[in-house]
Amino acid sequence: MSTPKEHLVLALSCPDRPGIVHAVSGALAEHGGNITESQQFGDPSTGLFFMRVQVETTAPRHEVEGALAAVAHDFSMTFTLDEVGRPVRTLIMASKEAHCLSDLLFRQRSQRLPIDPVAVVANHPDLEPIAAFYGVPFHHVPVTRETKADAEAQLLRLVHELDVELVVLARYMQILSDDLCTELAGNIINIHHSFLPSFKGARPYAQAHGRGVKLIGATAHYVTADLDEGPIIEQDVERVTHADDVEELVARGQDVERRVLARAVRWHAEHRVLVDGRRTVVFS
Amino acid sequence: MSTPKEHLVLALSCPDRPGIVHAVSGALAEHGGNITESQQFGDPSTGLFFMRVQVETTAPRHEVEGALAAVAHDFSMTFTLDEVGRPVRTLIMASKEAHCLSDLLFRQRSQRLPIDPVAVVANHPDLEPIAAFYGVPFHHVPVTRETKADAEAQLLRLVHELDVELVVLARYMQILSDDLCTELAGNIINIHHSFLPSFKGARPYAQAHGRGVKLIGATAHYVTADLDEGPIIEQDVERVTHADDVEELVARGQDVERRVLARAVRWHAEHRVLVDGRRTVVFS
Amino acid sequence: MSTPKEHLVLALSCPDRPGIVHAVSGALAEHGGNITESQQFGDPSTGLFFMRVQVETTAPRHEVEGALAAVAHDFSMTFTLDEVGRPVRTLIMASKEAHCLSDLLFRQRSQRLPIDPVAVVANHPDLEPIAAFYGVPFHHVPVTRETKADAEAQLLRLVHELDVELVVLARYMQILSDDLCTELAGNIINIHHSFLPSFKGARPYAQAHGRGVKLIGATAHYVTADLDEGPIIEQDVERVTHADDVEELVARGQDVERRVLARAVRWHAEHRVLVDGRRTVVFS
Amino acid sequence: MSTPKEHLVLALSCPDRPGIVHAVSGALAEHGGNITESQQFGDPSTGLFFMRVQVETTAPRHEVEGALAAVAHDFSMTFTLDEVGRPVRTLIMASKEAHCLSDLLFRQRSQRLPIDPVAVVANHPDLEPIAAFYGVPFHHVPVTRETKADAEAQLLRLVHELDVELVVLARYMQILSDDLCTELAGNIINIHHSFLPSFKGARPYAQAHGRGVKLIGATAHYVTADLDEGPIIEQDVERVTHADDVEELVARGQDVERRVLARAVRWHAEHRVLVDGRRTVVFS
Repeated sequence: MSTPKEHLVLALSCPDRPGIVHAVSGALAEHGGNITESQQFGDPSTGLFFMRVQVETTAPRHEVEGALAAVAHDFSMTFTLDEVGRPVRTLIMASKEAHCLSDLLFRQRSQRLPIDPVAVVANHPDLEPIAAFYGVPFHHVPVTRETKADAEAQLLRLVHELDVELVVLARYMQILSDDLCTELAGNIINIHHSFLPSFKGARPYAQAHGRGVKLIGATAHYVTADLDEGPIIEQDVERVTHADDVEELVARGQDVERRVLARAVRWHAEHRVLVDGRRTVVFS
Repeated sequence: MSTPKEHLVLALSCPDRPGIVHAVSGALAEHGGNITESQQFGDPSTGLFFMRVQVETTAPRHEVEGALAAVAHDFSMTFTLDEVGRPVRTLIMASKEAHCLSDLLFRQRSQRLPIDPVAVVANHPDLEPIAAFYGVPFHHVPVTRETKADAEAQLLRLVHELDVELVVLARYMQILSDDLCTELAGNIINIHHSFLPSFKGARPYAQAHGRGVKLIGATAHYVTADLDEGPIIEQDVERVTHADDVEELVARGQDVERRVLARAVRWHAEHRVLVDGRRTVVFS
Repeated sequence: MSTPKEHLVLALSCPDRPGIVHAVSGALAEHGGNITESQQFGDPSTGLFFMRVQVETTAPRHEVEGALAAVAHDFSMTFTLDEVGRPVRTLIMASKEAHCLSDLLFRQRSQRLPIDPVAVVANHPDLEPIAAFYGVPFHHVPVTRETKADAEAQLLRLVHELDVELVVLARYMQILSDDLCTELAGNIINIHHSFLPSFKGARPYAQAHGRGVKLIGATAHYVTADLDEGPIIEQDVERVTHADDVEELVARGQDVERRVLARAVRWHAEHRVLVDGRRTVVFS
Repeated sequence: MSTPKEHLVLALSCPDRPGIVHAVSGALAEHGGNITESQQFGDPSTGLFFMRVQVETTAPRHEVEGALAAVAHDFSMTFTLDEVGRPVRTLIMASKEAHCLSDLLFRQRSQRLPIDPVAVVANHPDLEPIAAFYGVPFHHVPVTRETKADAEAQLLRLVHELDVELVVLARYMQILSDDLCTELAGNIINIHHSFLPSFKGARPYAQAHGRGVKLIGATAHYVTADLDEGPIIEQDVERVTHADDVEELVARGQDVERRVLARAVRWHAEHRVLVDGRRTVVFS
């Protein structure tokens, strides 16, 4: 009788020193593990080591986890172990613009984007039909200066009730409080509509037009209390010309925003992104 | 007996109002002009109109010029009229890095870049062999805090003696004085080794590495007294990853720098770039 | 009392000879026309001249049309005159894959794509909900070898009843008959899921995988009786690696397909595409 | 007294089965090896497994090599072991066009391209000054139908005398004999001036112009007896328009050719390219 195989993904980081790869691959091999994908990076500037391994094992997952925990202890290692392809429970926040929300839900349904969209939260009601079309519960949580704290509390309740693992700000046009950023640190991704660090802050396309740039861009990054300064996950650009007015930049920018955000969400959900100080390691 | 044809390029700008195109094409038609290429742009934000026309004429150039001067007077127009493809007398400034200088000279010789490189000026002697290989006179003009004024005076003398029309800063690592920038305004192009306005100032690749960007870029712009703020002519980017250290960013950046600079120089030399306040109109 | 202005777009082609631009701009000026955008191209290889002009006029459109008809007669010219931004009545054909249909309808609603989607015709019922979401009538017209002629007759009936100006094959997986191609010539656009002329015919992503290419692409082209050989309107590519299997190529390819098709449809709808023998002139 | 470290790169391929990674990392660990970079790929379509590892070791290289030979025997493995960054002895072949030769030599000198250019062989004398500028011996070996066999014999003599490890066809416009292709199999790279498999054979830019493509490309591939069908290493494209004539396509194409070839040569020299049937695995 053959044991059913599990396909697991391990992502880890620790201070860099000799022997890490051997210790990890040894622990996996002892449990019948066959490594099918492996990437690693040692960052000389932070002294940290990062690794992502996909492995087929015949041993039960808790056994593999135990073996890794021992290695992790020896090497002061942080690690996550997950099933390859398991959809990550995701809450998407939006305001009025549809392109990012619509694109994420489309890719989830048609392009194997491994997220499970458990809720859409928006501070305007406009996008409800899109959520409904894809069968995702829609929560309209308006935000004013007075209600902001309540709104964030409501969001956190949803995060806990729904076991949310990832929050995506899909052109959500509200600034989150520092506390919320800290609470969700490492599990909240924003799409900024400029090629950061150019044009931080408000109305980046108007800024870009005023400066006369020849490419516009978008940046997906982890959200930190330090606005528009979180670790960058992905960026891309599109060519524009003098003839494109701000409205045209906005329209063209939407294409870049949605594809940059989709890539960042995919890589995060596949445990391909590891935070390395102010930077990210992306094993794409 | 048929009159030999001239192929001329007209570039103009003026306050936008109805009738400009008709007046210009009328003036050209009266002198046997046949328009072979035409581009235009009215900028609502500055109220200025820009046009570039290539025209074959049977009339002598001074007649065409006279007819255009009359139109220019009526429309408060600035214009230049030149032969299509005439090489622009160009002085290239460099320091120690070869890639931009070498690339411009290669393209001039092999790829129809319409410049006539009349001199290379460098504050270090390292690049002399490249200038010699391409047969361009090399002037070593060292710059220290004390000799900076003299060095700039020497540069201006060369500009005047050699009838220089365009100065290209091909990774010239000195900051020019405000006076020099003003004197050469509109005729001096710099390549900045970042995607402006990101990473202005010194060591942009180190800044880019520190910020963890996923694309690096280069920007060709007209030089103004306001450092790294002159009107942008062209930009491009290249993808990088977490694994690229600063040295690797520098090496990859060189590819972007040289092709961005080459495009900007070509477009300028073909009278395709018109300054529109802080921005440029590029009829590429 | 000021006359209301019309904003018109003129697209024309004719044998190339001197005087065309002047004749056209003269005819427009006589009717109070102010040219706001103008592009032109003379193709030495076919001897044809192409021009696209946007013009604001105070005269009624039929007067402008009459004046242009006279010029057209003199120069053996073909031309169209339309209002700038008028939505083109468009019929979209699809099969089972949603990405192109969904994207076109999204852009029509949110990104100023100037089409009026009057019908979706599909040989499978799967995409009905998307059409319903955007409020576009959905016609399920199954196709078998036996019913193909009937299906095409039904399509043509719809084209005539709905005054369809443009047919878009948005991943419609049936080959059209030569007669239908001829009937709709110049008004039917297909998206081919490869970088033509590479990988014509069936299963291009499987072919691309087998050949080990490092970029995959998509091509939007006018449909002619000569399969995958019609004039190309737009192409783009995306980078892939050895690790991407056919299924992954398909998923990544969808992004290229939808954006290439959207650009081609926009340019066609804005009268920016002119056929030049086997090639197209695109005044983008 | 500390043992000096060696930094080695191992590239291997073998039939895919469980245990390879563990066996290899074990063999390396036994000799004090610390893995600093590791990539792998199992190709389900060919059943082959590929791996590239960079490792710092304290043991002498021959000991590591011995340990690996034992593993290789068990797994029917082919492998190469080399020092990281060792310049590969390279012979460059060219004809009249300078851009690829010039670019490779520039990058070797200024951008850490790890080749040692031991000879330039050309069937025309034109490029001698470039070779001389970079101090590389130039061999003018003219080729006519009658002398072709002699010329190839002369080339092979050079390859052997100079211990050449890699031959690069940098726009060498002669077709090599099947025997020569076989002799140099896996160690000879060509740059084809089209996006293969489009426009195989002669004058690809003229073919591309005739077909009206909107992007032109270049392909670096290993040379096999089957012309333009060898495994592709790298490809890239550049945007063109209807207005670009064949001469312009050629000029723009040169930029793509030189950067595609440079990448392919770098990856080959760094042992990042492994042949997988008709395809390549590129651990870039």
